Amino acid sequence: MDKNTIIITGSAGMLSSELIKKLINKNLIIVGIDNFRLGSKKNIKKFLKFKNFHFFKIDLNKKISNKKLINFMKNKKISDIWHFAANSDIKKGVNNPDVDYEDTFLTTYNVLKFFSKFLTKKSKFIFTSSSAIYGEIKGKITDQTFPLRPQSNYGSMKLASESIISSFSYLNGFKSFIFRLPNVVGKNLTHGVIYDLSNKIRKKNVKFLQVLGNGNQRKPYSHASEIINCMTYIKSKYHLNLVNHYNIGNNDKGVKVKYIVKLLKKKYSFKKKIVFQKSKFGWKGDIPKYQYNSKKLQKIGFKFLMNSEQAIKKTINEL
Amino acid sequence: MDKNTIIITGSAGMLSSELIKKLINKNLIIVGIDNFRLGSKKNIKKFLKFKNFHFFKIDLNKKISNKKLINFMKNKKISDIWHFAANSDIKKGVNNPDVDYEDTFLTTYNVLKFFSKFLTKKSKFIFTSSSAIYGEIKGKITDQTFPLRPQSNYGSMKLASESIISSFSYLNGFKSFIFRLPNVVGKNLTHGVIYDLSNKIRKKNVKFLQVLGNGNQRKPYSHASEIINCMTYIKSKYHLNLVNHYNIGNNDKGVKVKYIVKLLKKKYSFKKKIVFQKSKFGWKGDIPKYQYNSKKLQKIGFKFLMNSEQAIKKTINEL
Repeated sequence: MDKNTIIITGSAGMLSSELIKKLINKNLIIVGIDNFRLGSKKNIKKFLKFKNFHFFKIDLNKKISNKKLINFMKNKKISDIWHFAANSDIKKGVNNPDVDYEDTFLTTYNVLKFFSKFLTKKSKFIFTSSSAIYGEIKGKITDQTFPLRPQSNYGSMKLASESIISSFSYLNGFKSFIFRLPNVVGKNLTHGVIYDLSNKIRKKNVKFLQVLGNGNQRKPYSHASEIINCMTYIKSKYHLNLVNHYNIGNNDKGVKVKYIVKLLKKKYSFKKKIVFQKSKFGWKGDIPKYQYNSKKLQKIGFKFLMNSEQAIKKTINEL
Repeated sequence: MDKNTIIITGSAGMLSSELIKKLINKNLIIVGIDNFRLGSKKNIKKFLKFKNFHFFKIDLNKKISNKKLINFMKNKKISDIWHFAANSDIKKGVNNPDVDYEDTFLTTYNVLKFFSKFLTKKSKFIFTSSSAIYGEIKGKITDQTFPLRPQSNYGSMKLASESIISSFSYLNGFKSFIFRLPNVVGKNLTHGVIYDLSNKIRKKNVKFLQVLGNGNQRKPYSHASEIINCMTYIKSKYHLNLVNHYNIGNNDKGVKVKYIVKLLKKKYSFKKKIVFQKSKFGWKGDIPKYQYNSKKLQKIGFKFLMNSEQAIKKTINEL
């Protein structure tokens, strides 16, 4: 019998490396795709020795025409597509909307256009969307929160990706899962507040630590390993609809940027000045405070074992 | 004092010609843009004699680089952008997703990228979205209907356009209005069931009339003149948020395709066979039945004077 083929785009990123770790010893053909612009080679190095892991270096923001991939895919049927390839840096897209348009929307569109023909009615398309699609809202975010008013191009191109996944699902008959993630931390960070600040601290001759915003931004953080557990759990059990939407992540009040700064200061014995900005936003389009209501997750029996504080601590310990 | 500049994209279409009629005698500079792929030259011919109407033939699905337009816009401030340019034929995008990607999403993205620099905090961006962004839902569509599961590329690229308008509004500080329209009919039709069927009937040597779907598709229709009245009413009075969403159109149960066929048969004394299909859908991705709940419209005091039946009758009379 043919093995199941799994496609993982953005396969050199933080979430994908957690996923591949989980899948690599199973009886599966795993196809990884990355362009190493955000992902890092060391994240996939350990998987390259496995015979069932097939890696292709491809820029997904262009129409897929890689001959090796085209040949490899001949007569294959895809069981799951995990589509992680996207811009992950919200700030980068503020002044240049092409960043999120190309690296988030176009990657999704090109992946759908190329891989749809290998999908069957049993196939599943898994997409990592974001809380950023909601924009700023009063109260907790539920899956019934409306209207959707993304304030960053990062958020709007995630929502645009959700949209095109939905119509492709209906027109082609495969199932899809839209997972709206909070801030994700863990091993192999490629972006985000911990990544930025620890890089600044470790720079030679650093004179002070510049923090974006006033430090009171409070957001929930979940650990990449748990996000992967949650997605695989839902994917295998809960697909009532053709297109399924889930907000996943911790439902606690989150952690302030100030708290992260404090932990990093201690970790690196950083004695120099910390400079905060006056703005309550870290950047234009930033949502400085949000919280998930996770009744839907409770109902289906998934519980995050690490809260935001624990996820942050574990990540900083492992830096 | 400088006159206000109004941009109207897709200015040779049905809705835009109703709008220009309303604005042409006011003290405004009106800029019309169209590529005449869907819009028709005769729709704007009558406006070309007005000195305050400036027309540019531009393909908005490519980056805007028209030198005449660039020159013309120098030192201008835009008061309103009415962005109508889009693919209007849902069926066309079923087999070729590039139709809606290019003509709906990319036109929106290019318009935002080019014109944002001429917008101020007082400017308004008006976008005609669609009920198709909701997909198939139980009960009536309200502005609190969720999740959004577009089933056609037409619907998904309208939703993607809504998304990018939202982030551009927040990042640049202008107001925007997302109007989700039902089926629109009226003078100067360029697409839709009446347009398709009447064209088929009037063909030489027609042997029978092929109707898409089983004829029981029941949808609400509103007249273009009233849709324009509704949008201008809301735009001038109701903009509580930076990004404002409204479902506009009749809240009645709508009219069946069979009813439209009956009226057209009578109008053209068509005696040949009518052939229906077995499918309850007119095409893949079609939403064969939906209805708006218009409590929000009632609350702000707007009432459609023509119901779906009257809008259809008036349109067929004027064919």
